[in-house]
Amino acid sequence: MTEMELPEKVPFDAALPLVTELMDRALLHSPEPAGGMMKHLAASRGKNFRAQLLLAAAADREGFVPRDALTAAAALEILHLATLVHDDVIDDSAVRRGRQSVQRRFGKKPAVICGDYLFCKCFLMTADLSRRYQDRFMTVARGMTRICMGELRQYEHNRDTSLSAAGYLRIIAGKTAALFSLALYAGGVLGGCAEKEIRLLARLGYYIGVIFQLEDDCMDYRSDPSTAGKNVKKDLSEGVVTLPLIFAIAKNPEIRGELRGFDLTPEERRAVAAEVCRLGGVDRTLGVAGRYYKKAVGVLGRLEDPEKRALLRPILEQVKLRRY
Amino acid sequence: MTEMELPEKVPFDAALPLVTELMDRALLHSPEPAGGMMKHLAASRGKNFRAQLLLAAAADREGFVPRDALTAAAALEILHLATLVHDDVIDDSAVRRGRQSVQRRFGKKPAVICGDYLFCKCFLMTADLSRRYQDRFMTVARGMTRICMGELRQYEHNRDTSLSAAGYLRIIAGKTAALFSLALYAGGVLGGCAEKEIRLLARLGYYIGVIFQLEDDCMDYRSDPSTAGKNVKKDLSEGVVTLPLIFAIAKNPEIRGELRGFDLTPEERRAVAAEVCRLGGVDRTLGVAGRYYKKAVGVLGRLEDPEKRALLRPILEQVKLRRY
Repeated sequence: MTEMELPEKVPFDAALPLVTELMDRALLHSPEPAGGMMKHLAASRGKNFRAQLLLAAAADREGFVPRDALTAAAALEILHLATLVHDDVIDDSAVRRGRQSVQRRFGKKPAVICGDYLFCKCFLMTADLSRRYQDRFMTVARGMTRICMGELRQYEHNRDTSLSAAGYLRIIAGKTAALFSLALYAGGVLGGCAEKEIRLLARLGYYIGVIFQLEDDCMDYRSDPSTAGKNVKKDLSEGVVTLPLIFAIAKNPEIRGELRGFDLTPEERRAVAAEVCRLGGVDRTLGVAGRYYKKAVGVLGRLEDPEKRALLRPILEQVKLRRY
Repeated sequence: MTEMELPEKVPFDAALPLVTELMDRALLHSPEPAGGMMKHLAASRGKNFRAQLLLAAAADREGFVPRDALTAAAALEILHLATLVHDDVIDDSAVRRGRQSVQRRFGKKPAVICGDYLFCKCFLMTADLSRRYQDRFMTVARGMTRICMGELRQYEHNRDTSLSAAGYLRIIAGKTAALFSLALYAGGVLGGCAEKEIRLLARLGYYIGVIFQLEDDCMDYRSDPSTAGKNVKKDLSEGVVTLPLIFAIAKNPEIRGELRGFDLTPEERRAVAAEVCRLGGVDRTLGVAGRYYKKAVGVLGRLEDPEKRALLRPILEQVKLRRY
């Protein structure tokens, strides 16, 4: 990877473009045989919520973000990318961020290695950071372990229509929230926050991650075929049981029969999704998301640094309201 | 993972049992849903060549191995295990170390996550080491990247009967030799060796890794069905082109026709393997292994510490002669 000259600190608004440039460099300078897959990944962009959160948490009282946070944010998004690539292998997903998934385009086997390669890239990018923030390594490694456990639990409960709401929240605590929590934790550490502030940030990240996932789940049930960049009724087609369905089943257990082991045509999937909405599954899920939103706002208000509160608030709103 | 009390240093002969105990603890104390897969993995043992090499390189002049080397050796074997689990997904292998592979027993999808989980375990185990040997982090991460590149290259050249001997050696430089090299490198670092000695050790590891892989390749062609713990003619059945086949094709290109895109019955595979042997593919490969063996002996002789030479020599011989 070509080294990129980074200023010691940059204003928050200038930080995200630099992070995506760092990511591009890491991906686009990969030699073959990894190169093709990396180019494919670099060509589609996510919203980089995790990077945004890290940067906001790392900003000082004048709104400047230190250099290390840029590197960490890029590495975190690459770690996220690694989990997405493996996720798509596991869920057999054809589409990711509006393009073919790596597993569909290049095959499942290269996709497994591609994810491993991205993990390695992430470590390479953070080598220097790991050196300077040695004491934090354990927390990061634990966060990563939590993500794996969440993934395993999700797989275990694939097509499991007896999954409880509590069981589901436990899955997404690992699968999604652990990485969001890691983002804000790392931001706090790199921004030189006090231990108490770092702990609050990590908790805020956890809440935001849960909201993100619940909104995502609802989006899948409410979206129509024109929604860009998403498989329609992806969760239903892959047998992933999420909170809207769990609530719908609780209201009317007979919907289980309509699911027929998740072996449904697109038409049938649409009908089930409509039924889930009609039974209030989506609304009740948004209600749960709302409760987490209140918790998040509460923790946000307890942050000491007003600049961080000001920067994090709009990202929280964006996560909460990104639907439809 | 329950912490295990380790003495500050132990005699070389006592080291490997402690390493396997450390591995067992890491694997067997994993909570569900990872627990079942971890127990399955812990129930079959490899020969732990990589751990043996690391321990030997880390031994002092009295033959004592420092505590850190025990932890590193266990983490390295767990990293190796992670690559095996993903390998079996990629190669669709049914058997590993005489038992069902994780992917066959639990499914491909959990096996992908299982590998990721083992990577995380490895980081958790080395968290403390990473702290104290910060400057080495980059080399370790680069070694891991090399392994991925080797894997990708191997996949790219699956069923490729035009693969050259040089191309093949490039594949195994990453796929196998990088991890052996990392083992001796880490041993040298943890044993407090001088930089020159560490470099020699890393090179020795590379040579031993190449020998290991070439011997493995030959074993696959020569083994008979009674050979325990191995798929018979595994490489041929999975379309993995190795040096014996490359040499046989060079001698008689018509053998390509007999391969019929590697879509062969076990009977046909046995016939092709016999033909590869008859054409001298195995003997010539053992010749190449012999040349690497000479290089290895040369580097071994240049090591400064006589105790390391004495400990490493028998492991080299074991790798060289482990066949049949």
